[in-house]
Amino acid sequence: LARIALDAMGGDHAPKATVVGALLALDDIDPAHSIQLVGRTAVIREQLDGLLADEFAHATGARDRLEIVEAPDVIEMHEKPVAAIRAKPNSSMALGLKLQAAGHSEAFVSAGSTGAQMAASAVFLKLHEGLLRPAIPTVLPTARQSVVLIDSGANVDCSPQELVQFAWLGTIYAEDILGRTTPGVALLNIGEEPEKGSKEVKEAHRLLQEQTALAFRGNCEGRDILSGQIAQGQVDVVVCDGFVGNVLLKFYESVAPLAFEVLKRAGVDRRLLERGFKAFDYSETGGAPLLGVRGVSIIAHGSSSERAIKNAIKVALRAVESHMNEHIGRRLPTVNVETS
Amino acid sequence: LARIALDAMGGDHAPKATVVGALLALDDIDPAHSIQLVGRTAVIREQLDGLLADEFAHATGARDRLEIVEAPDVIEMHEKPVAAIRAKPNSSMALGLKLQAAGHSEAFVSAGSTGAQMAASAVFLKLHEGLLRPAIPTVLPTARQSVVLIDSGANVDCSPQELVQFAWLGTIYAEDILGRTTPGVALLNIGEEPEKGSKEVKEAHRLLQEQTALAFRGNCEGRDILSGQIAQGQVDVVVCDGFVGNVLLKFYESVAPLAFEVLKRAGVDRRLLERGFKAFDYSETGGAPLLGVRGVSIIAHGSSSERAIKNAIKVALRAVESHMNEHIGRRLPTVNVETS
Repeated sequence: LARIALDAMGGDHAPKATVVGALLALDDIDPAHSIQLVGRTAVIREQLDGLLADEFAHATGARDRLEIVEAPDVIEMHEKPVAAIRAKPNSSMALGLKLQAAGHSEAFVSAGSTGAQMAASAVFLKLHEGLLRPAIPTVLPTARQSVVLIDSGANVDCSPQELVQFAWLGTIYAEDILGRTTPGVALLNIGEEPEKGSKEVKEAHRLLQEQTALAFRGNCEGRDILSGQIAQGQVDVVVCDGFVGNVLLKFYESVAPLAFEVLKRAGVDRRLLERGFKAFDYSETGGAPLLGVRGVSIIAHGSSSERAIKNAIKVALRAVESHMNEHIGRRLPTVNVETS
Repeated sequence: LARIALDAMGGDHAPKATVVGALLALDDIDPAHSIQLVGRTAVIREQLDGLLADEFAHATGARDRLEIVEAPDVIEMHEKPVAAIRAKPNSSMALGLKLQAAGHSEAFVSAGSTGAQMAASAVFLKLHEGLLRPAIPTVLPTARQSVVLIDSGANVDCSPQELVQFAWLGTIYAEDILGRTTPGVALLNIGEEPEKGSKEVKEAHRLLQEQTALAFRGNCEGRDILSGQIAQGQVDVVVCDGFVGNVLLKFYESVAPLAFEVLKRAGVDRRLLERGFKAFDYSETGGAPLLGVRGVSIIAHGSSSERAIKNAIKVALRAVESHMNEHIGRRLPTVNVETS
């Protein structure tokens, strides 16, 4: 029933990874769903024909669930987001989102420029009423269950009010996408005490305590993120501004390769390491929805593999089926955040 | 020649860990140096007599290089720093620093309350001329050589001018304590481009480019910290505000135990893991000087072990012998940072 638009031109490995990813997804999801491949028709058709004649010869019926939507332009990674969206109204990014805005699809997935996707999503899908800025959640693997870090890079210089809205966006995401009930929320800070931290974080703490409908558990520190647990209870959602979130995530991504190398040097068997570190590999989790826009816009990593694209499409489907977007639209206006 | 004052009452394992740490240090450093144990005389003497009669019976001559300085009060970890310093002028923290201010010792080491030590160091040693705020560097182990992260938690809400001063403090620290020549400096940010980041970081980037005497290599991202290398060259010093630094460090500390557990579950031999992860254990690096005060004040971890205390004393000695403090005093006033 859902139609997912995929930016066939987006990402380091497009269009091969995107077209293969779409075929893998079709094989994996309910046959009622279909995918729109948005991009240069000739390029997409060539990929598709080659794959369906060979590697995906078994995928009978896949062609009927695929639609090619012509988009002559492509936004390159180095282009300035807002300017690129304006200059290329017929890019795969813009057209893919316009499809959704016009009611021709229910979700959009891209591994192209994150900045351009954020800008285009805000322009074409618009923000939910009352929302100050959209945010990107990242699901971090931990020793127990995963934790949502929000914002993971969309916004720097966040106001306390924005941090409170991130807490709500993260909560709804944890419910709808991860299936958590009453997700625990913590504010990332340099100490447990409410009076710790920067001006913005101190004020956000105060405002979060007033959000009685939210399971706010107080501050958590850097060391608590991966434990998913503080004295006040389980933490499913960790709230921070996008500067801290971005630095943390990129740092985390660099730790496993370092540990891998050090342990290999210490004589640990390579295959055991590969097996162990698999838990830390979130390169194939697919993508994260840009939360707060009126619709579903899934941001996939620029280096997305075929499997990552497939998983991003599945995240999009989960967002559609759980009505995440409607939940955000319904609950955000009830968040009464005083603006100072 | 150097006299190092040690807060004998500071830290979770004091006075045992502090007194043993002092004895271990005396055994390890040039016999010309001596240590002042600052705290409750009776408590210290009891520890010392027991140790010298038994475990340290071999340490002949140690007693002559130890002086006990009576300080009847102790600042507890939960006390508010500034208030505690005022209320307890005869605490081991205050008296230990006053010794140095009066020229009776060359350095001070404490594993007590970091907040109180920062406040007391500023009050009794004073800041170098022109310095806005002192900062704490942390030496991070990496796959290659270590990297200095500054500020690692002393300051939140930093101005661009303060970030520039941190770059200088980190540079002198890397030269004098780590022995690096012309240390490379990078500004921690969410992207390589100068126009990325928060207001403060963007302005700091501009100001750092004007510091021609500094080996400023531009922005680095979270993933570059542990590689110690960016396109512009080697990075010895990573500059960030204390909020980001504190979150990062505590996060880093939590990664190794998690990886350890996951890998053990994957079947990796426990002893191999212990050997491998040793490189990541900086619990015994000792301590970090509070940079920017006129003197040497070494902040050791509250949970410092005997070995950590010994190492903190050695860090103090290295700071004294390298004339780090004089170098800071000489170079800081030449840092021409426009104040907006």
